[in-house]
Amino acid sequence: MSKHYKYYWEDFVPGSTREFGGIELTREAIVEFARQFDPQPFHVDEEAARHSLFGGLIASGWHTCALAMRMMCDAYLLEAASLGSPGVENLRWLKPVRPGDVLRVRTTVLEARPMESKPHIGLVRNRWDVLNQKDETVMQMEGYGMFRRRQAG
Amino acid sequence: MSKHYKYYWEDFVPGSTREFGGIELTREAIVEFARQFDPQPFHVDEEAARHSLFGGLIASGWHTCALAMRMMCDAYLLEAASLGSPGVENLRWLKPVRPGDVLRVRTTVLEARPMESKPHIGLVRNRWDVLNQKDETVMQMEGYGMFRRRQAG
Repeated sequence: MSKHYKYYWEDFVPGSTREFGGIELTREAIVEFARQFDPQPFHVDEEAARHSLFGGLIASGWHTCALAMRMMCDAYLLEAASLGSPGVENLRWLKPVRPGDVLRVRTTVLEARPMESKPHIGLVRNRWDVLNQKDETVMQMEGYGMFRRRQAG
Repeated sequence: MSKHYKYYWEDFVPGSTREFGGIELTREAIVEFARQFDPQPFHVDEEAARHSLFGGLIASGWHTCALAMRMMCDAYLLEAASLGSPGVENLRWLKPVRPGDVLRVRTTVLEARPMESKPHIGLVRNRWDVLNQKDETVMQMEGYGMFRRRQAG
């Protein structure tokens, strides 16, 4: 197979940014995700959430991660010669995400280097900022991604 | 409200470990999560996955995170005076998670300290190891959690 992709490792230029997404988070989606994966009272129970530190229902931090991933897939990853990710650093849930919030993602390429052991693969380190409709950063992380190189080194 | 919980900050003793969980991941669950949040071919398409680097369908890394969270909720977090989490460090997806794998979690308390600004709250730093049925560590991270103190400092 020699499928052609739109984006290869060379297309992730350090310093460049991409902004994409715009998913509105409904109360139903917050509760549905949390019932399945993170049923803490402030994620699933309106009344308990009102009396919590957060003053109302908030999304599971893992839900925000999953939505950021989905927005990245739709924006470019499904058209990229992606080989998955070894991990993430400095994941921070900075502000609560609430019903009605509209989330988007801004990625910044921090670093792009060839893999020493595999000359046809490169590693990219991206910062992800997840922003809400008030331009507040609700989540931040540094993610690593592996991509095929257009031209092997 | 002065609800009583089973676990407070004092119950997370540095060096102590907990092991829990045992969720079998089905092909259907892997594909369902990935269709919603991470529709890369090796997560949603059996045939494409077979021809990928991974040699078969694998779970989204965010699915593994979400399942680890669920296991933690069921094991102790829902009975704990938890106030949420500011974030995670050193998240590593070390091995693919495949259909039929049975996942469990081992947590180790790395550090527990009172919050300087809030004497009734303490911070706990946990290492999470997610293990499969072959005792391989498939994921690892260091998570922070905030808990009420049984006795304010």
